[in-house]
Amino acid sequence: MDIRPDLLQSLKALRLVIFDFDGVFTDNTVLVSQEGIETVRCWRSDGLGISRLRSIGVETLIISTEANPIVTVRANKLKIACKQAVEDKAHAVLQACKELGVSPTETAFVGNDINDIPALKSIGLPIAVVDAYPEVLAHVAYQTTKQGGYGAVREICDLVFHAKEDSLEMLGIYLA
Amino acid sequence: MDIRPDLLQSLKALRLVIFDFDGVFTDNTVLVSQEGIETVRCWRSDGLGISRLRSIGVETLIISTEANPIVTVRANKLKIACKQAVEDKAHAVLQACKELGVSPTETAFVGNDINDIPALKSIGLPIAVVDAYPEVLAHVAYQTTKQGGYGAVREICDLVFHAKEDSLEMLGIYLA
Amino acid sequence: MDIRPDLLQSLKALRLVIFDFDGVFTDNTVLVSQEGIETVRCWRSDGLGISRLRSIGVETLIISTEANPIVTVRANKLKIACKQAVEDKAHAVLQACKELGVSPTETAFVGNDINDIPALKSIGLPIAVVDAYPEVLAHVAYQTTKQGGYGAVREICDLVFHAKEDSLEMLGIYLA
Amino acid sequence: MDIRPDLLQSLKALRLVIFDFDGVFTDNTVLVSQEGIETVRCWRSDGLGISRLRSIGVETLIISTEANPIVTVRANKLKIACKQAVEDKAHAVLQACKELGVSPTETAFVGNDINDIPALKSIGLPIAVVDAYPEVLAHVAYQTTKQGGYGAVREICDLVFHAKEDSLEMLGIYLA
Repeated sequence: MDIRPDLLQSLKALRLVIFDFDGVFTDNTVLVSQEGIETVRCWRSDGLGISRLRSIGVETLIISTEANPIVTVRANKLKIACKQAVEDKAHAVLQACKELGVSPTETAFVGNDINDIPALKSIGLPIAVVDAYPEVLAHVAYQTTKQGGYGAVREICDLVFHAKEDSLEMLGIYLA
Repeated sequence: MDIRPDLLQSLKALRLVIFDFDGVFTDNTVLVSQEGIETVRCWRSDGLGISRLRSIGVETLIISTEANPIVTVRANKLKIACKQAVEDKAHAVLQACKELGVSPTETAFVGNDINDIPALKSIGLPIAVVDAYPEVLAHVAYQTTKQGGYGAVREICDLVFHAKEDSLEMLGIYLA
Repeated sequence: MDIRPDLLQSLKALRLVIFDFDGVFTDNTVLVSQEGIETVRCWRSDGLGISRLRSIGVETLIISTEANPIVTVRANKLKIACKQAVEDKAHAVLQACKELGVSPTETAFVGNDINDIPALKSIGLPIAVVDAYPEVLAHVAYQTTKQGGYGAVREICDLVFHAKEDSLEMLGIYLA
Repeated sequence: MDIRPDLLQSLKALRLVIFDFDGVFTDNTVLVSQEGIETVRCWRSDGLGISRLRSIGVETLIISTEANPIVTVRANKLKIACKQAVEDKAHAVLQACKELGVSPTETAFVGNDINDIPALKSIGLPIAVVDAYPEVLAHVAYQTTKQGGYGAVREICDLVFHAKEDSLEMLGIYLA
């Protein structure tokens, strides 16, 4: 399948990718123990994707509504900055763009639930994981083929990496 | 798909939704560690559904046969009341209706296993998760499309919310 | 689907059901933490099946090759006896029959891997979970429809219960 | 299905099987707790496969990029040697061959992600799990039918065992 020219253009222009956490880095489930410990399920291969983005100078950031130590733990492991306990994600997204000196048009946001919609409308490249809530899908330019927590983050990193590196053959693998 | 008029009527009338825990809030599995700690798997997006129900004044309650600290942990996180170690769920359901001043006809019960059948027969809107035991399905007016622990609770919350808010277009998304 | 007469006969005759643990009570995966703690995934609704068997006087037993505290934890919760660190399962099965005064012909064994084959050959009703290793399936009279850790144990309990209680209509649900 | 003669030849010649860890012994997810503990999901039946290989004198080894106590925990349980914090897997593979006195042509490597490609190119029998990244599949002589963490390691052990034992009928079961 050929990549849509508008999507390729948007991917090439990106300087910042902002991710929601639950349902994007995770499969949207949470393990709850009888001792009250929460645990989430992430995708090992996301790390390689994130570090390739870093190697070509694309910034990444996690923005999450919850204030949960899990997000810090995972963000530290992946060496991504994160903002937590965010009530208004669209505001936080625009704030992050300003702080990093990146235009919202050069920014992607990746979400899965209805509280991500304002943030998706505030930037240049709105993306949803394939298992996002259906209301969300109406607001995005790209749906991943992989599910949240099962490679969606890596897929997005690979798309951006190969678009910016002009390796269109590799892009074809992901968009097939 | 159009919503069945009787189901729409029942959803609009609801003032209380009572949930079984295992198999409804969870995928009905339990992780058992060698140290004897139990852990269950829940759905992150259930919280948003529950809080929307609360915002329009619909009460929620968890009733569980087990006496397990996990139920308390999860109920506290979602800010739902819970009754545990319940031997007779139908009795507990009717008791809860009385305490809250809600008629059983304005109440839904959501279950998955055969010990939920008496409770399902005692209220106005009996609901089962799609992966409920087959004996249970004969006793319900609605089966969710999502599985327990994978969005079933959120689906029910969304159905009730949109029915009561008269947002029938949104309802269509869930019933398609 | 009608139940095979020979299977119905064997189910009715049962006085003892012996289960392997991993892959039967669990989905055959094991969670391994960086602290060396092992955790397995079980099916909440197995408990109701086991207690119904107990209520009609059918004995149950777990036999496992591993010596693992997880088996004890789960067996205690379900109130089943268990024998661990068993090298020769066929020998342990026959020993258990003798101890309980039950003929091997009135006994079922449920397994999933090739080291269960001798035990399956030693008793009257050999059963495998549907996701057992293919070599095992050649040696059984019944394959469950549910997977290990996802209802296989409950399914077997329900089959035995309804066969012995002559509730053939209910049996039909499981064998459909 | 008949086994490809070249694959059978390679399997028969093997004296050493080297495995990547994440995505091969595991399903490539990682559970992250709010306390920062990582946990992975492995396949119980891999142990029986590994011990059968050992019984016929085939060496096994785990090579992993991460320095993670989980790998040590699992390797110790399975009684396999492991090398961690390996930056250059191809170099580590050739080093291991030298240490064990095995020719690279008598060696298999099993991987799932793009950083495994150089190692796959350095030995006689390159293998990928069926859910490997698509770039990897171009470099292997065999793809497993089972997924990583769901029997892929056991499948490879069984293939090698039955090839070396000339039990071609059993091989057919796996290659069907």
